[in-house]
Amino acid sequence: MSHSFPYSLLPLLSFLVFHKPVISLNNGLVLTPPMGWLAWERFRCNIDCENDPENCISERLFMTMAKRIAEDGFKEAGYEYIIIDDCWMTTKRDKDRRLQSDPERFPHGIKYIADYVHSLGLKMGIYQDIGTKTCIGYPGSEGFEKIDVDTFAEWEVDYLKLDGCFKDSALFDRDYPMVGKHLNNTGRKIVYSCSWPAYQVEKKMMVNWTGIRENCNLWRNYGDIQDSYESITDIIQWYAINQDMLIPIAGPGAWNDPDMLIIGNYGLSLVQAKSQMALWAIMAAPLMMSNDLRNLRPEFKEILLNRDIIEVDQDAMGIQGRQILSAMRGFGIEVWRRPVLPVKDVGNETWASFAVVVWNRRVDGTPFYFPQRLGFYGLTHANGYYVKELFTKKDYGLMKADDELPLYVEPSGGVVMFKATLAVADGSVDALRKRKEAELLRERLHPPVKSIRGRKYDKFPGMAPGADDLVSEEASVFFTLLKVVSVILVLLGVLRVAGFRPSNFVRLVRRVTAVARRVVIV
Amino acid sequence: MSHSFPYSLLPLLSFLVFHKPVISLNNGLVLTPPMGWLAWERFRCNIDCENDPENCISERLFMTMAKRIAEDGFKEAGYEYIIIDDCWMTTKRDKDRRLQSDPERFPHGIKYIADYVHSLGLKMGIYQDIGTKTCIGYPGSEGFEKIDVDTFAEWEVDYLKLDGCFKDSALFDRDYPMVGKHLNNTGRKIVYSCSWPAYQVEKKMMVNWTGIRENCNLWRNYGDIQDSYESITDIIQWYAINQDMLIPIAGPGAWNDPDMLIIGNYGLSLVQAKSQMALWAIMAAPLMMSNDLRNLRPEFKEILLNRDIIEVDQDAMGIQGRQILSAMRGFGIEVWRRPVLPVKDVGNETWASFAVVVWNRRVDGTPFYFPQRLGFYGLTHANGYYVKELFTKKDYGLMKADDELPLYVEPSGGVVMFKATLAVADGSVDALRKRKEAELLRERLHPPVKSIRGRKYDKFPGMAPGADDLVSEEASVFFTLLKVVSVILVLLGVLRVAGFRPSNFVRLVRRVTAVARRVVIV
Repeated sequence: MSHSFPYSLLPLLSFLVFHKPVISLNNGLVLTPPMGWLAWERFRCNIDCENDPENCISERLFMTMAKRIAEDGFKEAGYEYIIIDDCWMTTKRDKDRRLQSDPERFPHGIKYIADYVHSLGLKMGIYQDIGTKTCIGYPGSEGFEKIDVDTFAEWEVDYLKLDGCFKDSALFDRDYPMVGKHLNNTGRKIVYSCSWPAYQVEKKMMVNWTGIRENCNLWRNYGDIQDSYESITDIIQWYAINQDMLIPIAGPGAWNDPDMLIIGNYGLSLVQAKSQMALWAIMAAPLMMSNDLRNLRPEFKEILLNRDIIEVDQDAMGIQGRQILSAMRGFGIEVWRRPVLPVKDVGNETWASFAVVVWNRRVDGTPFYFPQRLGFYGLTHANGYYVKELFTKKDYGLMKADDELPLYVEPSGGVVMFKATLAVADGSVDALRKRKEAELLRERLHPPVKSIRGRKYDKFPGMAPGADDLVSEEASVFFTLLKVVSVILVLLGVLRVAGFRPSNFVRLVRRVTAVARRVVIV
Repeated sequence: MSHSFPYSLLPLLSFLVFHKPVISLNNGLVLTPPMGWLAWERFRCNIDCENDPENCISERLFMTMAKRIAEDGFKEAGYEYIIIDDCWMTTKRDKDRRLQSDPERFPHGIKYIADYVHSLGLKMGIYQDIGTKTCIGYPGSEGFEKIDVDTFAEWEVDYLKLDGCFKDSALFDRDYPMVGKHLNNTGRKIVYSCSWPAYQVEKKMMVNWTGIRENCNLWRNYGDIQDSYESITDIIQWYAINQDMLIPIAGPGAWNDPDMLIIGNYGLSLVQAKSQMALWAIMAAPLMMSNDLRNLRPEFKEILLNRDIIEVDQDAMGIQGRQILSAMRGFGIEVWRRPVLPVKDVGNETWASFAVVVWNRRVDGTPFYFPQRLGFYGLTHANGYYVKELFTKKDYGLMKADDELPLYVEPSGGVVMFKATLAVADGSVDALRKRKEAELLRERLHPPVKSIRGRKYDKFPGMAPGADDLVSEEASVFFTLLKVVSVILVLLGVLRVAGFRPSNFVRLVRRVTAVARRVVIV
């Protein structure tokens, strides 16, 4: 064994003799969705350090971004991981078959950056691929899985994004767990981000979601995000369509990953940037920024640092939210909702607080007036809810199911996000929240994980299939009425264009009736 | 005749006896594309003044916007027309069959607003429809054309947007010119904005473009703009596809209208807003903002007030620009170019200066490095060009065809717009510009209009069909090479995935050759 492996595997092997290998990753990491910064979406594989030294994939870029995270308030808000993506390596492994960082662009190696990142109180992430090559074509891990994982541990890396290019996706079910075991065996706590389902979904294969949640801390489910609002809506649409499959597998330590936050880049308007932040928080998504923190406009920084929304994302229960009204049924208005703390037990039911996003996908220029009673959103507890908007900070105070929330939602991707905090009778909200949080965290740190998820999921009345899938009864009535009126108006228009007058219509009915009578009589 | 017609028609009638009615509108108006503010895209038909008094279609809205135009620097930059769109009327005409403004929302009538607008040194515009109803359903002009036009003249309106809902579009060819004649007959100079081609294009009818340019000052060619970048790209795409048809009909007094500027609203990011401004200027488009001037973020205001770009839009030659490289051929990079002053006569050729827009439609996150020689853009005059970027104000000084312009173009709709001012040998640029401008304006104020357009259009060597339609030879070679390399790379990838190795390939060739030989021998 090469002298370059400082972590001997012998103690670990003896451990394995007495303990059945843990199938679940169960590394105690990311009990709430991980937050940080990831290079790919914004900086791609720019290796042109000669013409573009400030933006090329290099030591300088990552150390600069780490500094910005630490100094500009991001660290305090919870952003923690600084993650290198593809294009950090040389094209060849070294004589000991270990990966090497590019000597021009990373002259001091990865460990040097990790040390700097750790000195700032942050954590270090890196990228590799489970196939023969990375997606861009640098050396992949296939056949070198253990060497690579050990190398990363040696470099004191805290997070591994393991991509899935250049490999038969059918082998993922065998090899992603294998690399996970190697990671556990390093003895270092390393967050494990898999691209396992993303490639299988793309190829329309069957996906072993249970296996994925048992072996990875987070996983990309779907295609890469691009710098456009279209990409955001495409991703959210996919999550909505597949929510019954995705929600049950997410939870503390195991997260669906709809990909990076592109807030502050080129493609999103201000309201669209708010919609990504709001909906990612509803989806309990990892909050990995991929942007240029050196040139972030303050209005976008404010979105990324919105503590109320980060709190929703980081809710300790870790229940992924769901779409409760689709844009198609809502005439361009889409509603999402996520149960959050504090909760209240009543008999064998648990009533939750909720974060709600009303999202306007219409492009008709002017804010949409959307006055709905709280019951419309399924918020029906008799004690009521303390309602507060999370972007505007507008406070509505205590509201009950019959009280109307008169929202104006901006078009072209605008959102109103509000939190409805359950008003509890048995003590203050804060006290209840603290008790519940402690309880839930305890449960989570002591598996079996699956039954926690199962029980919690079934326990919320709003989460029962058929109740939460559908919009509340009131909303149904509202939109059905709207549809009926629309159909009548269109019909009247068609009749008008066709030259129909009421008198003609009466005549037509008479004729048809007359013919019918004759036929019946005959 | 009702006492409410202060402008007697008798003098005009006597005028018509001696002068053949002018078929061309020829009203001497909008020799450069009109600029102003139009309510529709941003404020639509919001008539809910009870819940939303600040944003409903009302006297208050238009007077507030006029004030902002006058006081916030827009007037100085050239924005001039304040235009009311649909939903200003009552549902019934008065006893004299005249239109009435809604008494609740326009308590003092339209003339009152026009007076206020004029007192600010601005001009007043209004909306009506050539059919039986406006698009929303208020009384249309059909059968009341003369009454309505006279009413507008009496109210001292300076601009009429005449929509085309609720009418057989085949009748437009007869009735738009008829209303134009009524407008001329009022004796008041009223800009005439037609929706004539828009509805015919939508219905795939044949369009009489010559008739349109002879009867209208500007005309909507295509569907309504919506508050999204997708809508912008859709419109630009349509203008590119149809440019050979559209460019020859545009010119002083007669403009293609790709619809309102939506800069500062909800749907466009900052770079996308820049792209609309840049491309509208290249297209010699009317610059009609539809936004909320009370809450305009300063970075968007800066785009709308960019004097260099407004100067391109308002170039006195009035030659509409064209796409010279499509995004499909340019791998997501699109190039547009417009000839502008100053120009230089050489023998019977005229060399122009150019405004150029390089537009990045890729969404791959990071600025695209696009280093091209000036010759790439077809800028080949031996004297060279003074090159200056119009957003960043970066000045490249004098450049010749062989000099490289090393542009980084931001993704997701980013643009670099530059002006290449022809370096002239016979006197300073300014002197030449002034001379040319005076000359051209003189020509334009004394028709025949068509032959001016024809001559000017043919005169620029870059405008000849086949030369300007195609990208420059250098660009062709560059992109052809890029394509060849891409195809080879994809082919190699496919072969690799298919398990081919060079040795296999050699074996395959041998086998095929062997079989072929046998066949030939047999």
